[in-house]
Amino acid sequence: MKLLEDRILSDGKVLPGGILKVDNFLNHQIDTALLYEMARELHRLFGEEGVTKVLTIEASGIAIAAMTGYVFGCPMVFAKKSKTKNLSDRVYSAEVESFTHGNTNTVLVSKDYILPGDRVLIVDDFLATGAALVGLKALCEQAGATVVGAGIAIEKVFQGGGDKLRAEGLRVESLARIAEMSDDSLRFC
Amino acid sequence: MKLLEDRILSDGKVLPGGILKVDNFLNHQIDTALLYEMARELHRLFGEEGVTKVLTIEASGIAIAAMTGYVFGCPMVFAKKSKTKNLSDRVYSAEVESFTHGNTNTVLVSKDYILPGDRVLIVDDFLATGAALVGLKALCEQAGATVVGAGIAIEKVFQGGGDKLRAEGLRVESLARIAEMSDDSLRFC
Repeated sequence: MKLLEDRILSDGKVLPGGILKVDNFLNHQIDTALLYEMARELHRLFGEEGVTKVLTIEASGIAIAAMTGYVFGCPMVFAKKSKTKNLSDRVYSAEVESFTHGNTNTVLVSKDYILPGDRVLIVDDFLATGAALVGLKALCEQAGATVVGAGIAIEKVFQGGGDKLRAEGLRVESLARIAEMSDDSLRFC
Repeated sequence: MKLLEDRILSDGKVLPGGILKVDNFLNHQIDTALLYEMARELHRLFGEEGVTKVLTIEASGIAIAAMTGYVFGCPMVFAKKSKTKNLSDRVYSAEVESFTHGNTNTVLVSKDYILPGDRVLIVDDFLATGAALVGLKALCEQAGATVVGAGIAIEKVFQGGGDKLRAEGLRVESLARIAEMSDDSLRFC
């Protein structure tokens, strides 16, 4: 998606340790017009799949997933990273390691919101090692729901998670696919 | 907003300890069509205020704030609860006590994203004691930005936070205002 690639080139910053900082338009300050265009592009890609739920993980996936659910005309569900007072014990759970935060979280989703008949589109802002996707896919499998695919804003292809999941048969569509990046350059696939 | 009040009456659940569970349409599973209507209502209320930024706090405020930013045609910024590798040291910070989670968080926003000239609409899913609003307002004051008001989905009026902030001069508009609730009843203002 050229709009997103151009924005990464103009506003993204590569930090040491393989971090791509896009927090002025994607995950701290959010360009809401770009968000809508990304959701429209995901609808162009997955619009024929009969999606009944969009699933993401808190926190930075929520904005793009909410807009995607709106464009698809279906609910959005976000998996939670910690157990709060107002979440029941009836949950599916999976372990997810965070590349950005350097820790491991148990992610939870209520059994009421992912159902056996659901056709789920998983949406997230980043795909690197694929840990979040694997965890969200596991939640859907526990529910007996069908995962129609994953729609990602930015895939760091060089970290291998996307291609590993594709090899396992998951349809993964990323709006910007970064082949390599270093302090002074960034190249898309 | 009758649409939201009706949904609270049909799908909300009152739990012991003053918790209103609305996680099947607002903060776990999200009804994205309702989300859009709430954002439109906030635009009807604050559309003449020259809003340049919508500000919220992660995680459950992100969806309504993103949609509100989209309807207002401006960026959305969400304050972060923990310091991550990809957030710079140039931040404003404030302490916020969470009623739901029973803990206190330092919330941070990059100095790059709330600017002196900004006219900020603070948006959140719940208003109870007002702690989150006070923290977000403090971040804006540190930046020298103008807070035009706060747009809230559900206000628990009986917890007093909204009226305290109104008495201090903040314009607070809540789409559903709960006067009182108990195990078997819930009454709006």
